[in-house]
Amino acid sequence: MNNHAPASQPGMVYLIGAGPGAADLITLRGLRRLRAADVVIYDRLIDPSLLDEARTDAERIYVGKAPRHHTLPQRDINALLIERARQGCSVARLKGGDPFVFGRGGEEALALAAASIPFEVIPGVTSAVAVPALAGIPVTHRGLATHFTVVTGHTCDETGPDSVNWEQLAAHGGTLVILMGVAALPAITARLLAAGLDPATSAAVIQNGTMPEQRTVCAPLAEIARAAAEAGIALPAITVIGATAGLVNTLDSNTLSRYTCSTPVGG
Amino acid sequence: MNNHAPASQPGMVYLIGAGPGAADLITLRGLRRLRAADVVIYDRLIDPSLLDEARTDAERIYVGKAPRHHTLPQRDINALLIERARQGCSVARLKGGDPFVFGRGGEEALALAAASIPFEVIPGVTSAVAVPALAGIPVTHRGLATHFTVVTGHTCDETGPDSVNWEQLAAHGGTLVILMGVAALPAITARLLAAGLDPATSAAVIQNGTMPEQRTVCAPLAEIARAAAEAGIALPAITVIGATAGLVNTLDSNTLSRYTCSTPVGG
Repeated sequence: MNNHAPASQPGMVYLIGAGPGAADLITLRGLRRLRAADVVIYDRLIDPSLLDEARTDAERIYVGKAPRHHTLPQRDINALLIERARQGCSVARLKGGDPFVFGRGGEEALALAAASIPFEVIPGVTSAVAVPALAGIPVTHRGLATHFTVVTGHTCDETGPDSVNWEQLAAHGGTLVILMGVAALPAITARLLAAGLDPATSAAVIQNGTMPEQRTVCAPLAEIARAAAEAGIALPAITVIGATAGLVNTLDSNTLSRYTCSTPVGG
Repeated sequence: MNNHAPASQPGMVYLIGAGPGAADLITLRGLRRLRAADVVIYDRLIDPSLLDEARTDAERIYVGKAPRHHTLPQRDINALLIERARQGCSVARLKGGDPFVFGRGGEEALALAAASIPFEVIPGVTSAVAVPALAGIPVTHRGLATHFTVVTGHTCDETGPDSVNWEQLAAHGGTLVILMGVAALPAITARLLAAGLDPATSAAVIQNGTMPEQRTVCAPLAEIARAAAEAGIALPAITVIGATAGLVNTLDSNTLSRYTCSTPVGG
């Protein structure tokens, strides 16, 4: 049902978190909205089998972005959501992980609100928690971490308001989860070390988390960037820094994930 | 199928994140494991309708904990998981939110690993992200927050290794999400303000997030504890502090959540 003329009543946009990778980690609510949608607008890291859940006659539009290679600029994605909604469509906007954790879902929500398009946010399992979990790392753990911080490594080399104060994060004392940013890992770890974070702090890098190809490299903070490079770790990947990363050897053998641990992790 | 004699083969324990409240925010994987389980061991904040998804002949065991009132000590919960698994049962351990975000899932996983019981962690939608989202607050937002930190307010008055360094968190600059800790909110905000966090920083407290009874109180940081108390906010509740909390007025009117905003939120 792709009525491309403006409808008398606008449709509805669902900003759906598809979860961290594996298709069955989507929520029941998200799946139901996806199955009912007229239009599915989806990102790069969406499991293809999820698209099979949409109606056969649903319009499918890929707007995925690779780092430094935007298939469709964000403002065009916003405009597309508004256009299809104004045609009366029910739009499933499928985003990897959670829409509001570095998903630019906030920008899409603001654009929809400004255009008076009704929308609903459907939270998803965030990679920031689930990818460490399936590699055997609880982001919080009694006696090891009372808090965790999630940050993206994309902005490491930028200046300006969006750039991250890694020196402050070095001092914060909990589990640090860095999404993406594998290329920036040498720069990030250098800044954390320069700010006084213990070189022996446990660290792990997880590639293709929650997927059959998942693998984990672990090493002390001072060596993690080199270990990840030697193992040929590439995106998508998540880095965990902190004492909880040291649990990977105890907890991973019992989970369903697969990994290679190139270096023993310090306490 | 509750065979209470030890089985030749141990069963399997699934540490399942049930999500932030509403039953349909469980993952498909979690729901499938729940439906197949012989035994369901569940916490306090689990939606009762989720229990209806278990087999009619499944054993249901409540081990919920209220603050300062442990129905069953953690070591007894661990022992129960091990006992039922040794009887050959498939055990669904249903936990609110995500098992590894202040769910003590790490402790249960370690106990199972030590007892050589096979287990699988099934991540869930964490309240730390979903509750703010459904109140109109993205925990990250371009130009407003490059990172977010999740911490529990339970430990505010404790000393020792588990206690939180609120002064460091005041300086970290991203979105701060405080789980529970409503009673400690005056003490927490006092420490953040004393450490130099701007009294005009946007803040919001969300009670019963994702549920029909959800309501939100927002106010500048300096006034949020008083505003929450005046509104009679009680547990379960989550506090969000940071510029992203200021988006609540723009984004919430279009979502399905309900809230009362007693005080305008500063930029």
